[in-house]
Amino acid sequence: MAKKNIFYAQSGGVTAVINATACGLIETAREHKKELGKVLVGRNGILGALHEELIDTSLESKANIRGLRHTPAGAFGSCRYKLKSLTEHRAEYERLIEVFAAHDIGYFFYNGGGDSQDTTLKMAQMSRELGYPLQCIGIPKTVDNDLPITDNCPGFGSVAKYVAVSIREAGLDVASMAETSTKVFVMEVMGRHAGWIAAAAGLAATEEGQAPHLILLPEVAFDQKAFLAAVNKTVKKHGFCAIVVSEGLRTASGEFVASAGLKDAFGHTQLGGVAPVIAQLIKSELGYKYHWAVCDYLQRAARHIASATDVEQAYTLGQKAIEFALQGKDRIMLTLVRKPGARYRWSVGSTALDNVANQEKTLPKHFITKDGFGITKACKDYLEPLIQGEDYPPYKKGLPQYVKLNNQLLAKKIKRHFQEKH
Amino acid sequence: MAKKNIFYAQSGGVTAVINATACGLIETAREHKKELGKVLVGRNGILGALHEELIDTSLESKANIRGLRHTPAGAFGSCRYKLKSLTEHRAEYERLIEVFAAHDIGYFFYNGGGDSQDTTLKMAQMSRELGYPLQCIGIPKTVDNDLPITDNCPGFGSVAKYVAVSIREAGLDVASMAETSTKVFVMEVMGRHAGWIAAAAGLAATEEGQAPHLILLPEVAFDQKAFLAAVNKTVKKHGFCAIVVSEGLRTASGEFVASAGLKDAFGHTQLGGVAPVIAQLIKSELGYKYHWAVCDYLQRAARHIASATDVEQAYTLGQKAIEFALQGKDRIMLTLVRKPGARYRWSVGSTALDNVANQEKTLPKHFITKDGFGITKACKDYLEPLIQGEDYPPYKKGLPQYVKLNNQLLAKKIKRHFQEKH
Repeated sequence: MAKKNIFYAQSGGVTAVINATACGLIETAREHKKELGKVLVGRNGILGALHEELIDTSLESKANIRGLRHTPAGAFGSCRYKLKSLTEHRAEYERLIEVFAAHDIGYFFYNGGGDSQDTTLKMAQMSRELGYPLQCIGIPKTVDNDLPITDNCPGFGSVAKYVAVSIREAGLDVASMAETSTKVFVMEVMGRHAGWIAAAAGLAATEEGQAPHLILLPEVAFDQKAFLAAVNKTVKKHGFCAIVVSEGLRTASGEFVASAGLKDAFGHTQLGGVAPVIAQLIKSELGYKYHWAVCDYLQRAARHIASATDVEQAYTLGQKAIEFALQGKDRIMLTLVRKPGARYRWSVGSTALDNVANQEKTLPKHFITKDGFGITKACKDYLEPLIQGEDYPPYKKGLPQYVKLNNQLLAKKIKRHFQEKH
Repeated sequence: MAKKNIFYAQSGGVTAVINATACGLIETAREHKKELGKVLVGRNGILGALHEELIDTSLESKANIRGLRHTPAGAFGSCRYKLKSLTEHRAEYERLIEVFAAHDIGYFFYNGGGDSQDTTLKMAQMSRELGYPLQCIGIPKTVDNDLPITDNCPGFGSVAKYVAVSIREAGLDVASMAETSTKVFVMEVMGRHAGWIAAAAGLAATEEGQAPHLILLPEVAFDQKAFLAAVNKTVKKHGFCAIVVSEGLRTASGEFVASAGLKDAFGHTQLGGVAPVIAQLIKSELGYKYHWAVCDYLQRAARHIASATDVEQAYTLGQKAIEFALQGKDRIMLTLVRKPGARYRWSVGSTALDNVANQEKTLPKHFITKDGFGITKACKDYLEPLIQGEDYPPYKKGLPQYVKLNNQLLAKKIKRHFQEKH
């Protein structure tokens, strides 16, 4: 069998460890030069394939590729571009096959969340339909931890660690100041539909009275009255109250709380401002002085405090993607499998892409306390292993040293330019 | 001379390393048991002295005191309570002397910013006036880095490192996403009057095109037109634009930009929301998709990414406070002194409290680029040494282990309760 080249792309919101997956994949492919061609990476995700902008990773030094393991965000560029159904976006799929054929690509690895797994499945369907042999393998990635079947998603463990560390530290700050100043602190974290990240902040509270005292999850409709009562009770009991809130918190009628209170001078609203709404609500109803923080990109880019477990899992998924491909596997998404037993052990498995595409895993009910403002022991038991270990990047002059690739593109072979739909 | 006890208190906003100063002070005092009595700490800062709530640190284990070196925030509680002039708040000063006399206190160490140095000076004046022998020594602390005479302030180096690391990481994230999604990222940092923290974020940009591209300082009146032009130019050139903004950014007429755009449903505004104002301004004028983050307490509590230089300086100041006191020094604030030469070397000096009280050091003009949106090489040369080195706290189960003191109070000796003015 003639050697085929590999296509790999990163998709959607990036994470602190998605490049570790790229590192594992490229390093492992380089160990199999007899069976495999080059690893070509889409510049800005799948757009790179559509536009025939293929990064030739064989031109990157060993050190640069190794450096990906400790470099956050998407080193080749990512994109938010969703390929729709085969009928709606048929031209896109055909173009991808055209580009892959032109560059002798036999493997399609797509590293992303739910939408990306859907695209991987459609690529598998299209390649079969057009009779172009292409092994399609999805590699999970999402800080939201909302993919089904896989026990957890790479990227999540590091955000989880970041938010737990941050609320532990900020909680100590508020506790120091509470006697005469700030009594309430609100920290906003990501999570539009699933509250995994907010829940993970709950790991910081290991003793009664420690931050965070209250967690507001998108899975639980915001009950203003019960919430304010809980805040008041916490301040009375512990002197202060530290709250973690998901950006996707909604009212009982399904409205985002973020858009309920704050508008700019032009009347615009945008998701990603629920912390100030909650803080001001507390101020106006209970009178407590507050501070609030919005973590936004800081949380998912925070490679400096990445979970070693997360880094290792992300790297291993890249490695296994190649190994599974060499075993002839196709039309699968890799999964992380939690082995039974009290001590956390994991392995890499796989599932048919058909089982995964376009599904979302939210927090199960038994992970949420009865009052809706906290996480249960079962939830902590699930989350805790995912934040274990530190994996510090190298530092120079006081700052982490992240690699910048050369990202040299292959010469184009197709004359026709392609304009994707928007 | 009979042994005298020591009073120490933390004041104002806390930092990632103020407890390292307490650690240095208590450990050093314990080495001088022949000359010195107990270290008594005010519970919630100076309020602890007014209310005769004195924490007996002699009851804390050696391990707990050592643990202060890596524990952020104020382990004994801090407060925002400013003692006014000797005439306005005479009863407060007299009460302090009464409490100190009752507990045989001969040393007053006050660990804080500008206001606290003013209080230390007034304590020195009052003790002299009332004929009560009290050595008064101020120990600098403030994330704002705005105290005069001292080359820098402990607490600042760690915030500086945090914001530089954070914008470097978030910058990589935005760069990954810019092709199809977020093009502008705005990160808000502390600094109401002085832009030292925002300036420090500039250390992250070591090569052309790296984040942050633009820095908005309170020292430079916000020029909306020039700013928007700079944002647009940056996006056109680099594909994205990362901005760091001081919470205290003001318009030419002196208004806080934070209060210019955003109001809640009740019409309230509060400082600490300039990032969304700037982000929405860019969206409405230039149309770029944005994200924004507000670091708030996370930045000053971030012991997990503290500067080793900062930790060492904070600890040494505590140590030197005791040594200077044993040398009979009085009515001084300790200072950090930068020695001449290309390689950064420092020592601890002191200055008369009269030189320090109620002064604020803002960014000098030659530290700001001509366009007002960046920092000069002179500024980088000043800042860079302060973020050097990592000093990671110990971790257990994936989270930093910060100590919690017992904070046992001494029995009260004065019957009369005291109610301070507000």
